[in-house]
Amino acid sequence: MILMTSIYPGRFQPFHLGHLKAINYILKEEKELIIVIENAMESFTLSNPFTAGERIEMIWSALKLEKIDISRILLIPISNIENNAQWVNYLKTMLPDFDICYSNNVLVKVLMEEAGITVREIPFLNRDIYQGKLIRARIIDNEPWKEMVPEPVYNMIINKGLDKRIRRISEEV
Amino acid sequence: MILMTSIYPGRFQPFHLGHLKAINYILKEEKELIIVIENAMESFTLSNPFTAGERIEMIWSALKLEKIDISRILLIPISNIENNAQWVNYLKTMLPDFDICYSNNVLVKVLMEEAGITVREIPFLNRDIYQGKLIRARIIDNEPWKEMVPEPVYNMIINKGLDKRIRRISEEV
Amino acid sequence: MILMTSIYPGRFQPFHLGHLKAINYILKEEKELIIVIENAMESFTLSNPFTAGERIEMIWSALKLEKIDISRILLIPISNIENNAQWVNYLKTMLPDFDICYSNNVLVKVLMEEAGITVREIPFLNRDIYQGKLIRARIIDNEPWKEMVPEPVYNMIINKGLDKRIRRISEEV
Amino acid sequence: MILMTSIYPGRFQPFHLGHLKAINYILKEEKELIIVIENAMESFTLSNPFTAGERIEMIWSALKLEKIDISRILLIPISNIENNAQWVNYLKTMLPDFDICYSNNVLVKVLMEEAGITVREIPFLNRDIYQGKLIRARIIDNEPWKEMVPEPVYNMIINKGLDKRIRRISEEV
Amino acid sequence: MILMTSIYPGRFQPFHLGHLKAINYILKEEKELIIVIENAMESFTLSNPFTAGERIEMIWSALKLEKIDISRILLIPISNIENNAQWVNYLKTMLPDFDICYSNNVLVKVLMEEAGITVREIPFLNRDIYQGKLIRARIIDNEPWKEMVPEPVYNMIINKGLDKRIRRISEEV
Amino acid sequence: MILMTSIYPGRFQPFHLGHLKAINYILKEEKELIIVIENAMESFTLSNPFTAGERIEMIWSALKLEKIDISRILLIPISNIENNAQWVNYLKTMLPDFDICYSNNVLVKVLMEEAGITVREIPFLNRDIYQGKLIRARIIDNEPWKEMVPEPVYNMIINKGLDKRIRRISEEV
Repeated sequence: MILMTSIYPGRFQPFHLGHLKAINYILKEEKELIIVIENAMESFTLSNPFTAGERIEMIWSALKLEKIDISRILLIPISNIENNAQWVNYLKTMLPDFDICYSNNVLVKVLMEEAGITVREIPFLNRDIYQGKLIRARIIDNEPWKEMVPEPVYNMIINKGLDKRIRRISEEV
Repeated sequence: MILMTSIYPGRFQPFHLGHLKAINYILKEEKELIIVIENAMESFTLSNPFTAGERIEMIWSALKLEKIDISRILLIPISNIENNAQWVNYLKTMLPDFDICYSNNVLVKVLMEEAGITVREIPFLNRDIYQGKLIRARIIDNEPWKEMVPEPVYNMIINKGLDKRIRRISEEV
Repeated sequence: MILMTSIYPGRFQPFHLGHLKAINYILKEEKELIIVIENAMESFTLSNPFTAGERIEMIWSALKLEKIDISRILLIPISNIENNAQWVNYLKTMLPDFDICYSNNVLVKVLMEEAGITVREIPFLNRDIYQGKLIRARIIDNEPWKEMVPEPVYNMIINKGLDKRIRRISEEV
Repeated sequence: MILMTSIYPGRFQPFHLGHLKAINYILKEEKELIIVIENAMESFTLSNPFTAGERIEMIWSALKLEKIDISRILLIPISNIENNAQWVNYLKTMLPDFDICYSNNVLVKVLMEEAGITVREIPFLNRDIYQGKLIRARIIDNEPWKEMVPEPVYNMIINKGLDKRIRRISEEV
Repeated sequence: MILMTSIYPGRFQPFHLGHLKAINYILKEEKELIIVIENAMESFTLSNPFTAGERIEMIWSALKLEKIDISRILLIPISNIENNAQWVNYLKTMLPDFDICYSNNVLVKVLMEEAGITVREIPFLNRDIYQGKLIRARIIDNEPWKEMVPEPVYNMIINKGLDKRIRRISEEV
Repeated sequence: MILMTSIYPGRFQPFHLGHLKAINYILKEEKELIIVIENAMESFTLSNPFTAGERIEMIWSALKLEKIDISRILLIPISNIENNAQWVNYLKTMLPDFDICYSNNVLVKVLMEEAGITVREIPFLNRDIYQGKLIRARIIDNEPWKEMVPEPVYNMIINKGLDKRIRRISEEV
């Protein structure tokens, strides 16, 4: 019988070591995990430079290298919707049944709790170091960021020239 | 390094033994496979009774029971888009890179080929037996259909009362 | 304290005596009623010839003539949404709290019941006589239909030439 | 015969005493009034925390307590549309016929006047006191705001914990 | 000073000799003409096989070969919208000012006339011969159709293999 | 045979002398040019005050006065889409075949180049003088702007009162 109860939503722009830690933490607590890739339809912007496909590839390759048991994980891209009040119900129709949501995001917590879903905090995320916004800023400023993401994510960004994409988009005034 | 090159699009209403055979066949040919769940936003209609979430759960539970190596598979729900001419490009932004599409559907073949993607036929699908439309008709008419789907799919449909949902929707005139 | 618990969804193309009976029946059972005008964004088609605005005007004028206590009624136009599985939740965000739905429509019943909302049948609707489709057919065929709708609805359709609109749209092949 | 000619559009986040004064003023001038609840599909954001349903409930309960003749009032939620140039026409298809718009909002005035609709200013609104933005800021800062809204609005916000929702959303950085 | 007053809406699937005659007729009556390409976002379907881009190319090349004064013509692709009642207003925001619409289509006529736009019939269209549906059927059935379209349209369809596209789409059951 | 290979995308809010110079420059290099009017569905905002129709009219009248060979030019309005990664493909389905894009906009360049389209810079645009944002600011501040736009654009803006529209929209705080 299938028992897939926890979800972990995020934008993963890019997927970094904080995310990886979170997933390892959740997999100790829960049997199965649905990683929800938010803002799937946004890309080539300063806060969402990578497409959903690129982010899936980042996460997939990182989880494999880490020898994480992928058979316990689903990776589902989800578009943004207009009305926040409908978001949890939208997730319910797009995902297998879930009853726990892991998130430190305030809006996610408010929406889940008003809809009666249990929300758990993810501890020890080191958000002063591991934070998408910070990593994107470092890429733009040509400061070191390699140590902040899993190796396959670094390689993919460099090999596909996605670091150049971010830098160029940032030029636009 | 990740090498995820083949996709297999379908509506999976419901996921049946023909789909399972197709996946086994493709996994012999390809290293990795993205199962694309089409019409993700359609549900509770005669041709698309199940939500995307329910279909993911069907496929996931069936693949696990069959001891298929799930670490080689991604399961991605995809909404329909207005303009067919943009469909392949839409998939490209939502999925990791792919270069082969497995499909027997004529429109899928036309769209993929005009976009330069190789399409391969899936042999031996027994579409006279294993066909979503047929199975839905049998559920409505209370004829036997248990042998046409993987066991966990049958159990899930019965346990969640999804067979009743189909029958009731069919009453509407 | 406000206690607005029942809803009555319909397309009201046009608002007819069956609808009026239904509203009178519900107002005997419930304290307050939200009339939900479905398909608000469809108009000038064979099955939905009237705009949401025209339908609101029909219902409003008929309820007033009938001396129905309008202070117990809300009239809310609602657009169709893509995914049926999200429909009840969509209504919940667009309407004040409700816990009973009056409807004889099979899909409405399935959706409401799967979402845990009580559905009550509306008795004595005489759907062989009072039916939107029938009335539209009679308007097209120049057969009598005046007795099937409240007087202000008849007058409005005639005065605004909405009967001609239906006839002309029906010419299109 | 129905004569519903004036509209009063607003976001009503929340419905406050300035809105109530405006409605009383308009009802002295006009026979009937359509209150248009704008941004119906936005909620759980800093500037639009309440759903359309919650706002309808606020207005409805406040009008009843004030013994305002509700039979002269329609309450219609309206989604935002992409193209401002189509907004007035969109309202025309969603509402009964109207020819006067009450508003102090500059964009509403420009759009209505370019479309040939008469716009009337609403006097004495005390926007330095009665202003949605101000009230939301006071709720966030735990400053008194009870005197700025009708009593049933205050009670509903407190009883449903909507003040907590606003405060929590405001924490997000 | 610019005086662009007439529009001619159509789907042009494909652009045929009836359309060309219509344009020649209108250009004798009017100074300038906006050709509105409807259903711009539909393609690769049985009734709308060609993309907006392909249809623009067909019309443009045909008008040039015919030595029609292109400086009097604008070619504007327009997407379908959900609500017919908003269609004329939508055109008004997307096109330069116009006051005459040339069309034999019943729905177009109803919508334009209810919006106060003059509609003129196009005479001598030989719709028994020159009709998109007929031409598409002939392409599917491998019957002659070359004489029904301008030469550049025929050449483009053959050279780009668009006839094969139609035939393949028609295979789908 | 048709050879329409270059596109020039812009918002043209309003169409100014920099745009006109760019078009003259491109027409020396290329045989045919598609002017793509971006953000076609945005209007009555501070950065996009004019409708698509008004912008088409501006460009059309300016090109005619300048005796530019309009038979080499197509003018196509294009709506914004949600996902930047799909933008180039969207253009491909809405426009005749093109292989060169003229643009100085960074995002346009990134998107075109990642999609394999050649991008050429437009020299000598004097963006310190000829810039939509600047012209709109001057209209708001009642500073001279007549010399920055083609004469028919100036006349149209004045005659239709579009300068007043910009000033009024800017009042809104």
